[in-house]
Amino acid sequence: MTAHPDRLLDSGLLSPVRAGTPVEEAVGDLAWLQAMLDAEAALARAQARLGTLPRKVAEVIGAEARAEHLDLRELALAARETANPVVGLVQAFSERVAAVDPAAAHYVHRGSTSQDIFDTGAMLVAQRALRLMRADLARSADALAGLAREHRDTTMAGRTLALHAVPTTFGLKAAGWRKLLLDADLRLERVLDSGLPVSLGGAAGTLAGYLEYARLDGEGPLDPGEYAARLTDTFAEETGLATAELPWHTLRTPVADLAAALGFTAAALGKIAVDVQSLTRTEVAEVAEPAVTGRGSSSAMPHKRNPVLATLLRSAALQVPVLAAGVTQCVLSEDERSAGAWHAEWQLLRECLRLTGGATHTLVELAEGLEVRPERMAENLALTGGQIVSERIAAVLAPKLGKAEAKQALTRASHTAQRSGRPLGDVLAESEELSGHFTAGELAELCDPARYTGAAAALVDRAVREPH
Amino acid sequence: MTAHPDRLLDSGLLSPVRAGTPVEEAVGDLAWLQAMLDAEAALARAQARLGTLPRKVAEVIGAEARAEHLDLRELALAARETANPVVGLVQAFSERVAAVDPAAAHYVHRGSTSQDIFDTGAMLVAQRALRLMRADLARSADALAGLAREHRDTTMAGRTLALHAVPTTFGLKAAGWRKLLLDADLRLERVLDSGLPVSLGGAAGTLAGYLEYARLDGEGPLDPGEYAARLTDTFAEETGLATAELPWHTLRTPVADLAAALGFTAAALGKIAVDVQSLTRTEVAEVAEPAVTGRGSSSAMPHKRNPVLATLLRSAALQVPVLAAGVTQCVLSEDERSAGAWHAEWQLLRECLRLTGGATHTLVELAEGLEVRPERMAENLALTGGQIVSERIAAVLAPKLGKAEAKQALTRASHTAQRSGRPLGDVLAESEELSGHFTAGELAELCDPARYTGAAAALVDRAVREPH
Amino acid sequence: MTAHPDRLLDSGLLSPVRAGTPVEEAVGDLAWLQAMLDAEAALARAQARLGTLPRKVAEVIGAEARAEHLDLRELALAARETANPVVGLVQAFSERVAAVDPAAAHYVHRGSTSQDIFDTGAMLVAQRALRLMRADLARSADALAGLAREHRDTTMAGRTLALHAVPTTFGLKAAGWRKLLLDADLRLERVLDSGLPVSLGGAAGTLAGYLEYARLDGEGPLDPGEYAARLTDTFAEETGLATAELPWHTLRTPVADLAAALGFTAAALGKIAVDVQSLTRTEVAEVAEPAVTGRGSSSAMPHKRNPVLATLLRSAALQVPVLAAGVTQCVLSEDERSAGAWHAEWQLLRECLRLTGGATHTLVELAEGLEVRPERMAENLALTGGQIVSERIAAVLAPKLGKAEAKQALTRASHTAQRSGRPLGDVLAESEELSGHFTAGELAELCDPARYTGAAAALVDRAVREPH
Amino acid sequence: MTAHPDRLLDSGLLSPVRAGTPVEEAVGDLAWLQAMLDAEAALARAQARLGTLPRKVAEVIGAEARAEHLDLRELALAARETANPVVGLVQAFSERVAAVDPAAAHYVHRGSTSQDIFDTGAMLVAQRALRLMRADLARSADALAGLAREHRDTTMAGRTLALHAVPTTFGLKAAGWRKLLLDADLRLERVLDSGLPVSLGGAAGTLAGYLEYARLDGEGPLDPGEYAARLTDTFAEETGLATAELPWHTLRTPVADLAAALGFTAAALGKIAVDVQSLTRTEVAEVAEPAVTGRGSSSAMPHKRNPVLATLLRSAALQVPVLAAGVTQCVLSEDERSAGAWHAEWQLLRECLRLTGGATHTLVELAEGLEVRPERMAENLALTGGQIVSERIAAVLAPKLGKAEAKQALTRASHTAQRSGRPLGDVLAESEELSGHFTAGELAELCDPARYTGAAAALVDRAVREPH
Repeated sequence: MTAHPDRLLDSGLLSPVRAGTPVEEAVGDLAWLQAMLDAEAALARAQARLGTLPRKVAEVIGAEARAEHLDLRELALAARETANPVVGLVQAFSERVAAVDPAAAHYVHRGSTSQDIFDTGAMLVAQRALRLMRADLARSADALAGLAREHRDTTMAGRTLALHAVPTTFGLKAAGWRKLLLDADLRLERVLDSGLPVSLGGAAGTLAGYLEYARLDGEGPLDPGEYAARLTDTFAEETGLATAELPWHTLRTPVADLAAALGFTAAALGKIAVDVQSLTRTEVAEVAEPAVTGRGSSSAMPHKRNPVLATLLRSAALQVPVLAAGVTQCVLSEDERSAGAWHAEWQLLRECLRLTGGATHTLVELAEGLEVRPERMAENLALTGGQIVSERIAAVLAPKLGKAEAKQALTRASHTAQRSGRPLGDVLAESEELSGHFTAGELAELCDPARYTGAAAALVDRAVREPH
Repeated sequence: MTAHPDRLLDSGLLSPVRAGTPVEEAVGDLAWLQAMLDAEAALARAQARLGTLPRKVAEVIGAEARAEHLDLRELALAARETANPVVGLVQAFSERVAAVDPAAAHYVHRGSTSQDIFDTGAMLVAQRALRLMRADLARSADALAGLAREHRDTTMAGRTLALHAVPTTFGLKAAGWRKLLLDADLRLERVLDSGLPVSLGGAAGTLAGYLEYARLDGEGPLDPGEYAARLTDTFAEETGLATAELPWHTLRTPVADLAAALGFTAAALGKIAVDVQSLTRTEVAEVAEPAVTGRGSSSAMPHKRNPVLATLLRSAALQVPVLAAGVTQCVLSEDERSAGAWHAEWQLLRECLRLTGGATHTLVELAEGLEVRPERMAENLALTGGQIVSERIAAVLAPKLGKAEAKQALTRASHTAQRSGRPLGDVLAESEELSGHFTAGELAELCDPARYTGAAAALVDRAVREPH
Repeated sequence: MTAHPDRLLDSGLLSPVRAGTPVEEAVGDLAWLQAMLDAEAALARAQARLGTLPRKVAEVIGAEARAEHLDLRELALAARETANPVVGLVQAFSERVAAVDPAAAHYVHRGSTSQDIFDTGAMLVAQRALRLMRADLARSADALAGLAREHRDTTMAGRTLALHAVPTTFGLKAAGWRKLLLDADLRLERVLDSGLPVSLGGAAGTLAGYLEYARLDGEGPLDPGEYAARLTDTFAEETGLATAELPWHTLRTPVADLAAALGFTAAALGKIAVDVQSLTRTEVAEVAEPAVTGRGSSSAMPHKRNPVLATLLRSAALQVPVLAAGVTQCVLSEDERSAGAWHAEWQLLRECLRLTGGATHTLVELAEGLEVRPERMAENLALTGGQIVSERIAAVLAPKLGKAEAKQALTRASHTAQRSGRPLGDVLAESEELSGHFTAGELAELCDPARYTGAAAALVDRAVREPH
Repeated sequence: MTAHPDRLLDSGLLSPVRAGTPVEEAVGDLAWLQAMLDAEAALARAQARLGTLPRKVAEVIGAEARAEHLDLRELALAARETANPVVGLVQAFSERVAAVDPAAAHYVHRGSTSQDIFDTGAMLVAQRALRLMRADLARSADALAGLAREHRDTTMAGRTLALHAVPTTFGLKAAGWRKLLLDADLRLERVLDSGLPVSLGGAAGTLAGYLEYARLDGEGPLDPGEYAARLTDTFAEETGLATAELPWHTLRTPVADLAAALGFTAAALGKIAVDVQSLTRTEVAEVAEPAVTGRGSSSAMPHKRNPVLATLLRSAALQVPVLAAGVTQCVLSEDERSAGAWHAEWQLLRECLRLTGGATHTLVELAEGLEVRPERMAENLALTGGQIVSERIAAVLAPKLGKAEAKQALTRASHTAQRSGRPLGDVLAESEELSGHFTAGELAELCDPARYTGAAAALVDRAVREPH
């Protein structure tokens, strides 16, 4: 089997939620390697801008910093020797640069440390992945806003603890889903806007190596604090990341923030998924996933249209929160670099990004194509013979009949309605207790689920008006 | 055993990190019950302000809403019948109100639903607990700022992967700890400022029950959207919580936000704890926990001063992130009220609050009393015979001797220094390769760990200047 | 609020799944304290049996070892000074013993260490809790065996990915639930039978203290290995726990095993819960929870019979696996006693026991009282107009008509059946393609869901025959 | 970037603990695909043995069932359409078979369902991975037994809560590590021996499809129960897996058992890792990782020999327990196949296998090459001026001087010893209180840490005698 070209392919076979979605390549090993090379190149440019590295050298380093020039697998194997992939990367990359310009090679990774490059690369990867997610979320939110408006007044059963409770509208449900997406997006935005900083600390977070080389390579005296700040700011500019107040090798706020935002985002999508599945059930059938040839078909049952998109979403939502917890625990990083907690973060974080990014992409298709069936909603609303408005009727009857008597009258009428299949309003209209209190028209209106949706329509209007 | 008064005491026996700290009572069952009663009272006041409930009734309800009037255990047992404690609470509370004013009893919980009361109560409990935490964090951050300033120039070994790397300062370490606290505090502040909303949705999130009673109890016609918005805003004012754009019975952003902020806060404290423990080790002995009579003593070894505060902190930090993950997963709440995901949140969230609040309180004592031992730091710095500055020396020698030769010369000298116990500068000064390149004074300076702390001092200055 | 007697009551308000169930007191603080005292008493008896402690002293210690003699809250608060409750316990207990017999007090905790007492106590608590669980599981398994037998041939829709797939039987479902309970029980049994050992290591796991006192207190020379083994075995006998090959202060297999078995057990019960909820949905209505006055009623909707028992079960099932993961992580206990990992276990483990024990108790009521509705199962089976047997019909038609043609014929007929509400067999009987291939009777049989339940009945027979 | 051959390479870059270890290919996508094809082939052979599928067809299917014949990536992408990779696999594989023997193609996946093939494949993958792990564990356990014997009497400081407590031996520590490995191995063995069953249930767990085709394809009448049992048993024989009492599509015991055993195994290795790191610290330096060229070197600090193997182990140990919790939660699989919980298992389980298998492989190198430094252990033992035996001295002095006076005398002497660097025995020998009670020789012996290791040697002897 060794010779097979696929032997280390990560095809997505076990993770269809992200197979073939854009995030997959954006966070793959090759992209991660490229991001670390981007960090090396940006560092050289930053040092050049501060006059402590020849501008020409920075250009050579930048030109050579391409992942396809290096042997990814060899670097991964070499990472076992040092417990991180950067030591080997610097060596291989230096050799590559040396082949072009031997003098330039000495300036690669000048004054730096593995964690600066790895963490900066990780932030670049995360930045790209989060941008993909936000674009997906915007599309889904738009689609859901459309559904919310369209079904502003589509009455359906509100369900609590698995049972019909009181009526609601599909518009309100869609508006709620959209709200969750906006919440998730806001949390991703916060992280993107200020939570993704460059890492620049040198061997133990003091920037001593950078300063020493700046002293050796630069001209004239150097104020350590000022140079450290300028190097960090310039590095941030060159990468497009945020600057960092303090080196954060073992102050893992940026990574924990990412994990928290991703855990929430995946879970938010999972909420939509479990709702879609609840409404898709054969007996409920109020929504259906978009009908696409081949989609959702079963190997054995040709007519089954499975809620596969929701299934994929839920598969991600069940995974990401526990993975994210693993990342959060790595905040317990001892000393100036942890012997293990840092290393445990990497794959967990990447998987959080990959699953969540796959899920946001999958949701677009679901949100834009969801089939809503108001007629089934209406049929289901009728299933309990009017009990779905019992809260209302009890409230209205109580002042007339007394609380206990009202409750009994309602119970009797509901049972009759459910057994006979007749409208509850009609049954009540025949009731002796109520004669004189309400007209038949009043009772029919009182028992109409569509007239007991509270502020649903207004809530939808307010929710979808909200700019985002 | 049944009759023993302690039989259901939650004494904190298994959770010393929070035993006796203020958060314990703030989030205990009795406090939770009181918070739910506060929610009922605030709801009545809000309805009274909108003219749909007699003002006098709101006063009676408010006066009676005291947890000590109800039988807590009885309510807890009754909660098994309905899977939540509010149904029983409303019944018992209504009876209490009825004893004072029978007519008022009908207005208790008017139009409401269990989840509105429970969730609003939970937010009140969380608000109180977060405020306690923030006060603790402020004290600890102040203490750490003091340590950072005091030890701005106290050189110590920077440690990576368990080994000495390059020098750092204790000031920078303390500044980093403080930065984590400020990060945690900012995340708690964000949740406090806008993330803790009232819950107001009625049976299925449409506010239909509130509107129906408003129609029955009020005067004149009612605009559903406007009334719903006003009731929510007024309820928020009466509770001191934020308002809510949409009912969030199954849009669990507020709870997930809490979990994320608490998970991070506990983990951040855990980072400080593992550092303190690393520095406390018998062989390291660079810090010690505050000496307090009885504190940290072992039952068998009278002279042992255990790092008990750090141990308590770490015990919380190991727990809260997994508990928080459990809360995040409950975002997958199906329908208009989940049959289980909502219920799983309660104890997990309370435990997150309790452990984190216990930990922040415990940290104050540690941060304010930590004993720092610069002399031990200096001794340990010398342990590797100068290897701790090898990064620097290699950088400086390379241009003079060539990279490979420089490395070898350094290796030889370091071994000699370590074996003989002589300063590395002295050994290097005798080296033939270096003669003519550096004076003895230059070499001594080059090998002085205190002169290779990079931007540590400047980073401290910047970090502790930052207003918070 | 300070003076209120309830202020530290753990009433179960936030955890109704266990409120009032037997496990609650069995694992409460008072029971834990008693178990630690039981460990002290058993240690004294064991030492007495080996002749290194006066028999009379062991009796005094045993007689005084009663939790109600000590101030639980005071011990919990004192635990903050040493990060564990045993140091304070030993002091308070020694004083208590001294009051009766001053000489005996010196023998309390003779040669011992906090962790020996705490961990042995924890194993005793776990043992008692697991026995409660196993008794509950046996009752539930019996009830489910009864349901499986009774509904051996009750046909219902098998559902995959939320949709009807092919028929199954309720008997097979119940047999599957029971199998999960037997699986869980087997895992608990394994832990009970050999996985709950005494802890006996002394200060750092060498038993040196025990040996030293044995040398001082005993008569004649002592073989360390033999005495250590005999003391461990005798201590095990006196407690009723298993012996231990090696002291396990930081070899946490027993605790990790407990966590794994409890995590699985809770999750297994959760599977039953989600199935019950799925079948309870208003539109499905194939099962209902036992009807008990007051049970499952909603505050606002008088006729709703919520699946509250399943809800409670699911609330536990969502919590325990993450708590158990926290326990497993504590296997990473550094040195001879961890500064935090040990301490993080306690509350997590107790909560695993409490939630799982509450859940097993709750399940008994559900399993013994579940209402099954074959008539609704039959109605639902008909919902897809025969598509539920399409797998079979496609298989049977293919050899006659060719695979593609068979599929098309079936699709057409199913749509007609679903639209018209007529039996699929009748529709097929009218189909031209099939004329000559099958008789109407054959087609009716082929389309009967009750005739396509495969080996369901035989699987039930085999499963419930199995002795347990 | 699209065209780059590495673009979907899983190189192990972010997971060095497993990069290049045997488990990597054993659980990779290609291996997983092959295992599913192995399941298809075994199913055909089993059906042939029962006479319901032509023997020749089974041979063709078996011959063609090779992963390299299929396009892995295409299958992964197709999996998005059905939420699992088997539907596409069956189609592509059938085409492949049809190219060789069109009639045989109809028999591919005869009567089967995606989950049967996927789950059986997963068990095959797990079986292979667990066998690799067990071989690794056996090697590591042997190496640790050797260390335990060799250092049976090598005294070192026992450490609790980060501080010296009483003496122990390195032999006992190594024996404890080995015990954990044996514990882990036993748990893996249990799963291997009976916990890895074939999956055979058909569309909804009744085996109806298998039975229907057996009826159509076989000769003579068929007893459903008997055929189902024989098919399952024969399938088990053909795969080398265990048989299954009941179809377990949503009875996920086998997967939960795997997760539990892997979570524990990884954590057990993590315990060894944190101990190695604790002992490696520069100030402690009692052990060192094997010196291998290139291993553990730092990019910036040429002389640093990092504990990289322990770091890799710890990185796995921090991840697997949370991943395993995710798997356990998937036991909550609703209905006859979950719409998401099944799918969430796959990647989590594979990652548990991969990380744990990488870790067991990594441990071999650490266990076989660990450098132990008894001389450093002796030096460190002396650091506290004899306090490390204070437990013993207090015990011995108490009967002579009284408990309080003994304690004070010891405290004074210890301080003097520590300050002066003189042996505690000498200091005590000069003490007036003790004159007449002990000879100098007795005191020297009493204060010798090597004479206060309790039963350590005997425990080692017993532990390493144990056969495994």
